Amino acid sequence: MIKVNSAKIIKVNFGNVLKIMDNKSIGYSRFGEAYFSFINYNKIKGWKRHSKMKMNLIVPFGKVQFVFYNHISRKFKKVTIGETNYKRITVEPGIWFAFKGLSKKKNIILNISNIKHSPKESESIELKSIYYNWGS
Amino acid sequence: MIKVNSAKIIKVNFGNVLKIMDNKSIGYSRFGEAYFSFINYNKIKGWKRHSKMKMNLIVPFGKVQFVFYNHISRKFKKVTIGETNYKRITVEPGIWFAFKGLSKKKNIILNISNIKHSPKESESIELKSIYYNWGS
Repeated sequence: MIKVNSAKIIKVNFGNVLKIMDNKSIGYSRFGEAYFSFINYNKIKGWKRHSKMKMNLIVPFGKVQFVFYNHISRKFKKVTIGETNYKRITVEPGIWFAFKGLSKKKNIILNISNIKHSPKESESIELKSIYYNWGS
Repeated sequence: MIKVNSAKIIKVNFGNVLKIMDNKSIGYSRFGEAYFSFINYNKIKGWKRHSKMKMNLIVPFGKVQFVFYNHISRKFKKVTIGETNYKRITVEPGIWFAFKGLSKKKNIILNISNIKHSPKESESIELKSIYYNWGS
């Protein structure tokens, strides 16, 4: 299950403040770990699936196309977020995901997750293993 | 009290992964809120002091000069972090701080704090109220 949550931008002199989430936000359960992932322009990382980790994804700079795949319903969901669509995506465990960098500048993703990252609870498969039309 | 903690960069094809912190990291106590602050090139935000918030500051993109001021010891501490010096700064409550954007690109600061931001527990004073030589 995927949920796209609003995230507030506060206009401030000399540089804005972008809210991410707090401990009362929808999609927050507990703090496990936070990390950044960069994705280069036109490159795709994926597919990956967590069995336990719940992710909260936000893009403060650049633009990233996420594609989520539910292998039970066999449905895809595309969500593009970034500077021009500043939102936070909550991703429950069990969903396949992949993402593509859409900005020629940097594309920065922050993940705040409920557990610490561990290879034991994540699976990775090749991009071609799940067919999706990523465009050119 | 200020502590500069190491933060790991993991080389990954198509874009690196930058560790920030997890729930076992030095400087972590609890999750209150996370937010981004941008600071434009050559601009300074400050001074500000939190009475309760403990901050964990990290700069994934750009370069930011932080200056911390302990009004009891009357000592300043300058710490510059960013892409070329990727570290996390833990700041205990009670310390005045101000920061300057050093990169002409974007300067992005992530703060992961132990409480939700509230104007009730923070004080702001004008930059000139505490003299520091910021250079040109």
